[in-house]
Amino acid sequence: MAYNPDASIPCSNVTRRNPPDAFSELFGAKARHGLTFEQIAQAMNKDEVWVAALFYGQAKASEEELRALGAVLQLKPEWLSAELGPRWYPNRGIGPIPPTDPVIYRLFEGVLVYGHAIKAVIHEKFGDGIMSMIDCKIHVDKKEDPRGDRVVLTFDGKFLPYAKW
Amino acid sequence: MAYNPDASIPCSNVTRRNPPDAFSELFGAKARHGLTFEQIAQAMNKDEVWVAALFYGQAKASEEELRALGAVLQLKPEWLSAELGPRWYPNRGIGPIPPTDPVIYRLFEGVLVYGHAIKAVIHEKFGDGIMSMIDCKIHVDKKEDPRGDRVVLTFDGKFLPYAKW
Amino acid sequence: MAYNPDASIPCSNVTRRNPPDAFSELFGAKARHGLTFEQIAQAMNKDEVWVAALFYGQAKASEEELRALGAVLQLKPEWLSAELGPRWYPNRGIGPIPPTDPVIYRLFEGVLVYGHAIKAVIHEKFGDGIMSMIDCKIHVDKKEDPRGDRVVLTFDGKFLPYAKW
Amino acid sequence: MAYNPDASIPCSNVTRRNPPDAFSELFGAKARHGLTFEQIAQAMNKDEVWVAALFYGQAKASEEELRALGAVLQLKPEWLSAELGPRWYPNRGIGPIPPTDPVIYRLFEGVLVYGHAIKAVIHEKFGDGIMSMIDCKIHVDKKEDPRGDRVVLTFDGKFLPYAKW
Amino acid sequence: MAYNPDASIPCSNVTRRNPPDAFSELFGAKARHGLTFEQIAQAMNKDEVWVAALFYGQAKASEEELRALGAVLQLKPEWLSAELGPRWYPNRGIGPIPPTDPVIYRLFEGVLVYGHAIKAVIHEKFGDGIMSMIDCKIHVDKKEDPRGDRVVLTFDGKFLPYAKW
Amino acid sequence: MAYNPDASIPCSNVTRRNPPDAFSELFGAKARHGLTFEQIAQAMNKDEVWVAALFYGQAKASEEELRALGAVLQLKPEWLSAELGPRWYPNRGIGPIPPTDPVIYRLFEGVLVYGHAIKAVIHEKFGDGIMSMIDCKIHVDKKEDPRGDRVVLTFDGKFLPYAKW
Amino acid sequence: MAYNPDASIPCSNVTRRNPPDAFSELFGAKARHGLTFEQIAQAMNKDEVWVAALFYGQAKASEEELRALGAVLQLKPEWLSAELGPRWYPNRGIGPIPPTDPVIYRLFEGVLVYGHAIKAVIHEKFGDGIMSMIDCKIHVDKKEDPRGDRVVLTFDGKFLPYAKW
Amino acid sequence: MAYNPDASIPCSNVTRRNPPDAFSELFGAKARHGLTFEQIAQAMNKDEVWVAALFYGQAKASEEELRALGAVLQLKPEWLSAELGPRWYPNRGIGPIPPTDPVIYRLFEGVLVYGHAIKAVIHEKFGDGIMSMIDCKIHVDKKEDPRGDRVVLTFDGKFLPYAKW
Amino acid sequence: MAYNPDASIPCSNVTRRNPPDAFSELFGAKARHGLTFEQIAQAMNKDEVWVAALFYGQAKASEEELRALGAVLQLKPEWLSAELGPRWYPNRGIGPIPPTDPVIYRLFEGVLVYGHAIKAVIHEKFGDGIMSMIDCKIHVDKKEDPRGDRVVLTFDGKFLPYAKW
Amino acid sequence: MAYNPDASIPCSNVTRRNPPDAFSELFGAKARHGLTFEQIAQAMNKDEVWVAALFYGQAKASEEELRALGAVLQLKPEWLSAELGPRWYPNRGIGPIPPTDPVIYRLFEGVLVYGHAIKAVIHEKFGDGIMSMIDCKIHVDKKEDPRGDRVVLTFDGKFLPYAKW
Repeated sequence: MAYNPDASIPCSNVTRRNPPDAFSELFGAKARHGLTFEQIAQAMNKDEVWVAALFYGQAKASEEELRALGAVLQLKPEWLSAELGPRWYPNRGIGPIPPTDPVIYRLFEGVLVYGHAIKAVIHEKFGDGIMSMIDCKIHVDKKEDPRGDRVVLTFDGKFLPYAKW
Repeated sequence: MAYNPDASIPCSNVTRRNPPDAFSELFGAKARHGLTFEQIAQAMNKDEVWVAALFYGQAKASEEELRALGAVLQLKPEWLSAELGPRWYPNRGIGPIPPTDPVIYRLFEGVLVYGHAIKAVIHEKFGDGIMSMIDCKIHVDKKEDPRGDRVVLTFDGKFLPYAKW
Repeated sequence: MAYNPDASIPCSNVTRRNPPDAFSELFGAKARHGLTFEQIAQAMNKDEVWVAALFYGQAKASEEELRALGAVLQLKPEWLSAELGPRWYPNRGIGPIPPTDPVIYRLFEGVLVYGHAIKAVIHEKFGDGIMSMIDCKIHVDKKEDPRGDRVVLTFDGKFLPYAKW
Repeated sequence: MAYNPDASIPCSNVTRRNPPDAFSELFGAKARHGLTFEQIAQAMNKDEVWVAALFYGQAKASEEELRALGAVLQLKPEWLSAELGPRWYPNRGIGPIPPTDPVIYRLFEGVLVYGHAIKAVIHEKFGDGIMSMIDCKIHVDKKEDPRGDRVVLTFDGKFLPYAKW
Repeated sequence: MAYNPDASIPCSNVTRRNPPDAFSELFGAKARHGLTFEQIAQAMNKDEVWVAALFYGQAKASEEELRALGAVLQLKPEWLSAELGPRWYPNRGIGPIPPTDPVIYRLFEGVLVYGHAIKAVIHEKFGDGIMSMIDCKIHVDKKEDPRGDRVVLTFDGKFLPYAKW
Repeated sequence: MAYNPDASIPCSNVTRRNPPDAFSELFGAKARHGLTFEQIAQAMNKDEVWVAALFYGQAKASEEELRALGAVLQLKPEWLSAELGPRWYPNRGIGPIPPTDPVIYRLFEGVLVYGHAIKAVIHEKFGDGIMSMIDCKIHVDKKEDPRGDRVVLTFDGKFLPYAKW
Repeated sequence: MAYNPDASIPCSNVTRRNPPDAFSELFGAKARHGLTFEQIAQAMNKDEVWVAALFYGQAKASEEELRALGAVLQLKPEWLSAELGPRWYPNRGIGPIPPTDPVIYRLFEGVLVYGHAIKAVIHEKFGDGIMSMIDCKIHVDKKEDPRGDRVVLTFDGKFLPYAKW
Repeated sequence: MAYNPDASIPCSNVTRRNPPDAFSELFGAKARHGLTFEQIAQAMNKDEVWVAALFYGQAKASEEELRALGAVLQLKPEWLSAELGPRWYPNRGIGPIPPTDPVIYRLFEGVLVYGHAIKAVIHEKFGDGIMSMIDCKIHVDKKEDPRGDRVVLTFDGKFLPYAKW
Repeated sequence: MAYNPDASIPCSNVTRRNPPDAFSELFGAKARHGLTFEQIAQAMNKDEVWVAALFYGQAKASEEELRALGAVLQLKPEWLSAELGPRWYPNRGIGPIPPTDPVIYRLFEGVLVYGHAIKAVIHEKFGDGIMSMIDCKIHVDKKEDPRGDRVVLTFDGKFLPYAKW
Repeated sequence: MAYNPDASIPCSNVTRRNPPDAFSELFGAKARHGLTFEQIAQAMNKDEVWVAALFYGQAKASEEELRALGAVLQLKPEWLSAELGPRWYPNRGIGPIPPTDPVIYRLFEGVLVYGHAIKAVIHEKFGDGIMSMIDCKIHVDKKEDPRGDRVVLTFDGKFLPYAKW
């Protein structure tokens, strides 16, 4: 296997690399087996959002998780390990700023419109600090509703108080 | 009362108006009475995130809600109605892009890192459409945890399928 | 009256002047008399979108139109003429790019998502040219619908073919 | 067929993928048969703007719509389904910001010049909320006029009131 | 011939397609025959600026003009018609903003330094409206001068008054 | 008189100073006497575009020109000399980039659409160099036309060949 | 005391509020007493970088720290508490992006030039995660050197591994 | 060997070249031998951050350092010398601005939040000048801590006082 | 005297403070006495470019230099010391990016057009390193020439080789 | 030879073409013969900065200069003439804005920090006008100094006074 150093190099100021072939392979295998992220996640004992993030090169799997992924997608574990194993680290953050796709823009709009309100309530509830996006778990749930089903998107992140020194 | 048309005019390409005096008054009264958003929200039978959004000029209250707000903050209802009543509409979207404050940046980072994963899972669960940020309810909850308390931030938005025509 | 030359000078690269006092007066008088744009428009025999554009400093009224505006708002015609009359020309184009307010962003999203489709259909129907935004009339109508009322926004603009020379 | 995961991955901050080959095929078939969007739309019982949006990768067709499209363009339905079927979702929003092409810039100019007026009239007619660009139908019509034909561009979008909670 | 749909698709937010091969062919043929834009323009009975715009993909020729172009460049008319004929429409607006090349930057500097003066004089001479860049003819002339020859660049554009409605 | 050093200091990265009071005075006096730029220009034996540029702080008058300006506007020459005389130099370049006002945007669009064609023709006619925007004279003329009057905008700039060394 | 809600509201997209008067008072008192950040920090038993961050509105002091600050600067504790006490939270992130001041730009250049190398070494030493800038202590030390003294700038931040879920 | 001039040419305004093949080779050899930057650095008697910078094309090795690098990676010295030797100079500065990867963004956030405090302390300790990022040595150390290990990142840069003349 | 902490705080992302009153005083005194930068520089035994930089808040004078400045401008030394003395440090970097004023833009154009050539020659003459802009002396000289006088602008900066570690 | 029209077409808004093959050939030949820019310049009787600019596609050589270049690099003159001869004109302005490479950024920093001072001194010495970057000669000299060698960078540009008309 040819180790692809590009996989973790943003090669320019604004344009970043195309997803390396490994990710194309993941999407291809998912399509070939007709699997959803939910099904893959169940087989891996993970959440589907985390699994989707893995497919977009935005999360890093352990060797054990790669084996589970290889099992469900019928991909060779040594290939997965060579491509996405111990030597690869994600280069996170993809897509245009501001986002142009309406689904992703709506999340961004949430930051623009409700960001200061969320910040104020966090401060009142927790004090001076932040909600971690590193130690954070994200879920997308479907809540059925006769007036129109609802998407329930949850961020569950550790509160980190500011250090003083 | 002098009706302030500036309150809904973004006066330039990138710089928008300071929050009108009415909002300063709201923050001042909140401080004077030593109230939290949670306490004001309980008195108004609303969620604290929505109430905080109202204070930042990012939500619009009905006449009845303004009366409830006036009652808890001891502000004259006619003044509130003149300032923030039927003739005023929010000009939404505040703060720098990308956000520089770490609390708000973390939400933005969530869009950059997990936006495509969330989009993919929404599509698999709901089909082609978006999670509305207009018909959306947002909550900030505190989950106690011995390893460090956690912020649970929930977006509960209606799924809107794309029209075809 | 002090002629305000600032009214037509964008004074910087990105920050433009606040709306001059004349526009504050217009909004103030509208509020004082409890009038809607629709009512003012009917009294002036104009469309409400054009009248609203006039209040935001984005359209120019003739002397006769200023007289009609003065009559409905009970403002002195000579004052209106001095402020917004023959010597004043709009400096058009307001608000942040991209827009942050969700109402205005949705129009912008229409350009992002459907702009190329609209361009392609215009070319197939009319040939090489543009839809004028100068000789263009814009209407906002309400279409009642039991599943939720609809906004019908119409741009009626002259087709202009490209010159050749 | 090789499932192309790139088709829904914006691979960088500002540069997005080229349209996948499937769209080139659509344009090629349209040219080969000498069809206009209007003719394809009639054959599919759809509007030409929606059909053009589909060609630009900005709309998603159902399996049935793909069959109709395949029929009029003489493309194999299984190929269309594999490329643009259940596993593909559009990544919406294309072209530079601000637009540089004069046709599309004029639409953008409409947002800059008339956006606040349109917002104000929507609020007066409907209250606090937005015109949906998701549940929105767009038409381009030709109105003949001896002084120069006119383009009539209509956005017919559902009004969505802001949630309160 | 393979119809190239890319020719009218700006494929990203800021990066646009390379000029399609047809334009490379035009430049190649011009070089092969050692022709200037002036000579091609004379043979086509057109202005050299318009012809240069055509070579840069910024103007659209009629079938008749393509035949004249083919005659002077010795290119097959059916090839020209297939590439740049009835199915192709320019995607206008090329180069970085602000321009970096000194020749083009000087034009841009003219907008920055003299734009408001030109606007003011147009308003005084014509009223509220614009100089069309669509119905506009542009010429570059050489004026000999012993102190240094001068470039005389003329924009001759129709005045368009703003519609009222 | 208080010498205003701000008049030549751009005080920030993107936001520049408001036009100093001297320019407000010029516009005020022009309005008070009901003069057009053309009339002022005739009295000063100058072109109206240059005079308008002077009013926008984009050109510099000599002492003699300030005296002529003072005579036509009935402003004291010593005041003009103190404000705009030997110690003041313009800080050129005003307005947003890209311009948002439709009149000025059209000039900018000319650069986007025709800039490369103009550059190519200048090179063919003059060789490697630029059209100076410093040694450049600009005129706006009205050409009457039954199909709609035309604006003839002329840039007459010295050609400057590139130095070699 | 008038609670200043502006102190935590970034009032626009790019322009943020001036530092509130409280910070001017802090700088004024520091100057009045001729104190350095180092001296204030010693009196407060804190590091000078943290104290300087407090003066720039980028850190939050506890009530006890405000009392210590008041003691060294001879400012009334109740005033400090009212201005910067429990109801105030910093809006962090100041200055232009990219920084223009050479001192701050050099730090930014460190990110541009060495950011990927630092990231790679962190990953090799710690695995997939980040160095926290929230639980981070920063020191500036002077290292004397006959060839020129050296600045030793240390970031001591907690490593945070990415959550999986 | 074909000298690759691209290696030092940023070929566009915002997009820069992919790392030349030489760097891919370095990463490939490092992977092939299963070496860490720390191991390579020890073999070269250098710091691991500097070595990582070399792999990302952000530092320049001497001929002797290239020989040491070739020895540890088992690459031919003449090839290394031809590619990265005396004729090659780094084009420094990679990745998007602001950075999107959370590891690198945190460093950037340090500039945003603590930049002015660091600048103020440097001035108090050293006077008017800067910390050089050219004569600067950077280290990443791991400090074990039962509450979570810590990253200690040190910049050791020469202080440069401003010249006066 | 009220110490002005604003003088060294850039208060926002893109907009920086107006020059503090001290600088207005400097410009005012210079105008009052009819002095040029050259004359002030001679009296201070400094170069006129450095003196002009001081007036624009871009350089820092010692106490002795402030005394010399006060002597030539007839300003009280204690006032100068309080305003611009030991507690004040410049916040460097002013004006829009890219510059819009033609004089300053030409310098910027020099970077765009000749930057890579200058870099290449510096590397060939000196090796891997930079020309310091901190230990740099800048002169503007007038070279008379019958074909038009010439500006000779010289940057004399120390070469700094890159550290290795 | 295939005339390469791309060589003078900036094909996008921000991304410009890679340097055409001709420039790669120049760099390759320079490397092959182990020549410095200084040596090539001496052989061509030109300055090394101008020659380097030529290699980066930022200057245009005459036929005679191409012959001299061909002689020193042992490249065929007809090939050089076909590639870079009468039909090719540079598209000037390369690299990111602001520059990220520290060498080039330092020049840019000179514009940010000293631009206004340089402008003020030019105005005092020459009046209202600019230093031409077109009729400008640039030199890089090495000044040996025991405390560290110095780079002396000189811009020798014609002063151009503003036209009046």
